Amino acid sequence: MLVDGVPYRTIWLADDGWAVEIIDQTRLPHAFVTRRLETLQAAANAIGDMQVRGAPLIGACAAYGMALAMHADPSADNLARSYDRLLATRPTAVNLRWALDEMAGLLRELSPNARATAAYRRAAEICDEDVATCEAIGGHGLALIEAAARGKSAGEPVNLLTHCNAGWLATVDWGTALAPIYKAHERGLALHVWVDETRPRNQGAALTAWELGRHGVPHTVIVDNAGGHLMQHGRVDLCIVGTDRTTARGDVCNKIGTYLKALAAHDNGVPFYVALPHSTIDWTIHDGVAEIPIEQRDPAEVLEIAGLTPAGEVARVALTPAGSAAANYAFDVTPARLVSGLITERGVCAASADGLAGLYPEHAPEHAPEQADG
Amino acid sequence: MLVDGVPYRTIWLADDGWAVEIIDQTRLPHAFVTRRLETLQAAANAIGDMQVRGAPLIGACAAYGMALAMHADPSADNLARSYDRLLATRPTAVNLRWALDEMAGLLRELSPNARATAAYRRAAEICDEDVATCEAIGGHGLALIEAAARGKSAGEPVNLLTHCNAGWLATVDWGTALAPIYKAHERGLALHVWVDETRPRNQGAALTAWELGRHGVPHTVIVDNAGGHLMQHGRVDLCIVGTDRTTARGDVCNKIGTYLKALAAHDNGVPFYVALPHSTIDWTIHDGVAEIPIEQRDPAEVLEIAGLTPAGEVARVALTPAGSAAANYAFDVTPARLVSGLITERGVCAASADGLAGLYPEHAPEHAPEQADG
Repeated sequence: MLVDGVPYRTIWLADDGWAVEIIDQTRLPHAFVTRRLETLQAAANAIGDMQVRGAPLIGACAAYGMALAMHADPSADNLARSYDRLLATRPTAVNLRWALDEMAGLLRELSPNARATAAYRRAAEICDEDVATCEAIGGHGLALIEAAARGKSAGEPVNLLTHCNAGWLATVDWGTALAPIYKAHERGLALHVWVDETRPRNQGAALTAWELGRHGVPHTVIVDNAGGHLMQHGRVDLCIVGTDRTTARGDVCNKIGTYLKALAAHDNGVPFYVALPHSTIDWTIHDGVAEIPIEQRDPAEVLEIAGLTPAGEVARVALTPAGSAAANYAFDVTPARLVSGLITERGVCAASADGLAGLYPEHAPEHAPEQADG
Repeated sequence: MLVDGVPYRTIWLADDGWAVEIIDQTRLPHAFVTRRLETLQAAANAIGDMQVRGAPLIGACAAYGMALAMHADPSADNLARSYDRLLATRPTAVNLRWALDEMAGLLRELSPNARATAAYRRAAEICDEDVATCEAIGGHGLALIEAAARGKSAGEPVNLLTHCNAGWLATVDWGTALAPIYKAHERGLALHVWVDETRPRNQGAALTAWELGRHGVPHTVIVDNAGGHLMQHGRVDLCIVGTDRTTARGDVCNKIGTYLKALAAHDNGVPFYVALPHSTIDWTIHDGVAEIPIEQRDPAEVLEIAGLTPAGEVARVALTPAGSAAANYAFDVTPARLVSGLITERGVCAASADGLAGLYPEHAPEHAPEQADG
């Protein structure tokens, strides 16, 4: 997507053909800084320090981290060490393990002197595959925005609401929830996006607002409390959010607060869609509320917040009285009954076991391994 | 209530018997500072600068402002000027106008040399009446907490959730939503309160957490996004919130985000109660969503936040990228269908026209003025 008119991805090969460059997302929204990664260690730090975040982007950065490692030392020993080092950065990230297994499985079969070239090629493919997946999500979701636009007078914008950041910054390009919005913007549809700030980490206020603004998409930042009021008054035509984990029956585990917006959408007849690549679907679980453990993060994220001082420095300030404790649940689960549909790279389906089985027949119960083997 | 063991109200007469003292709430939660008000102007500034806030406390401070004015100059001219000056501080505050009308109506009938004494006496009565009202709300709400406690094992706390600050800091003492909690704490019931931080002005994180902490009530601050997840997992037994305006059929207009918590409570079978003095009831309106205009405040409250720096200074920091706009709706309306009951100074009733008419028969339709006159 564009940053003030210049097209960017979140990760790319440097002009010299071996180093890797990223956008340092820890500096957003107050500064746009790119970083050059030359070593495995630099790639691991970029993931661990959350300079890159978002499941697809973490996977892409890990793949390039393996390429940087092979560039320096293609030995089997270094291959194993680099795999372990990268995996330890964000141990619970599904795409991280997938990308590392993909790279290691390929590279182990090759002679050391073939590994670097193959690693760069596969890392580039992983990036391109992610871009294609996200662009396909965008294309399928576009139809939903076009449908909403047909109910509007000429020039009156479609009002969308999104929570957290499921934009291009979380992927290699396009994003998931924001991909349909970028597609609609590309088509010239009049749009306006309500951006939930998304406490405690404020990914909406910091990242979603930044990427929409730099690409030129009209938007307004609101506190997480505001969406219900807007929906009561017809100010939201369509909600689109992302998901970190989707169950086989269509429950979605996404950033804390998503469930509250889904309840408000349901109460006011506002369509509530969830955009996802198939990699977020966990076919082994069904009841998200009962089965998905919710990560608790550092209470300091609730007790303090970082922002830009009038002097132009980023500072952390305390929000609560000394002695008050905080709890910090990172995600919540939105039951499928509150989800109007799932927007995947294969199309839009109902948030149900049948809906998902229709798009992913290879995962449908009748194709479960024990029967496919029979 | 207690501040580290010392009983306080939010406003009181100084030991010298004529000046007035307040807690400067703009300094909370990072500093506990009391201020001495000696003039009408100081009282007006205390209201205008939100050193005192909350409808009942604003009314009490205005009443004492009139007393300070009469102490300095009891002339009819100063009486009229002081009324106007105080009314201009927060023009939309219902209790402010009520308290000023009460004071001016009384004082105009008296000779100038009798005005100061009468003003101090009536201001003190207004404070005591508010305390009695809030304590009665606390007594009636206590029964709901006791009922929840009967479903708990010994020592297991009743988990309450509240939004914004409807505590003693918003009144003269006890508060509205927190009054039942203080009553239950006084009885020795095991309690734990989830405190919504309440963006954008963070009255929960700043004021509710401070007053619960100083009084010794166990509590945990959460972001506004978290309540739905907690209710899904049985971690909330009872919600109690306040209201700024209540319609004749029981819709409640309270701080933005209240509606989302009411939806989550309804979806999870968690009782959702609203505590209010009768002064918040507007008998002239019924459909809160359609009829109550929602104030929009300065977008800077969303774009920036104030907190305590590590150096111990209060600083404002920007949260969003330059160029991103924000919208700042101050309140939302929770329809009566989502409210389990209203806790008033006269008892607990259903959130309905019939429920309110049962407690306030003098306002019931059959007692409407045109029929009472017939």
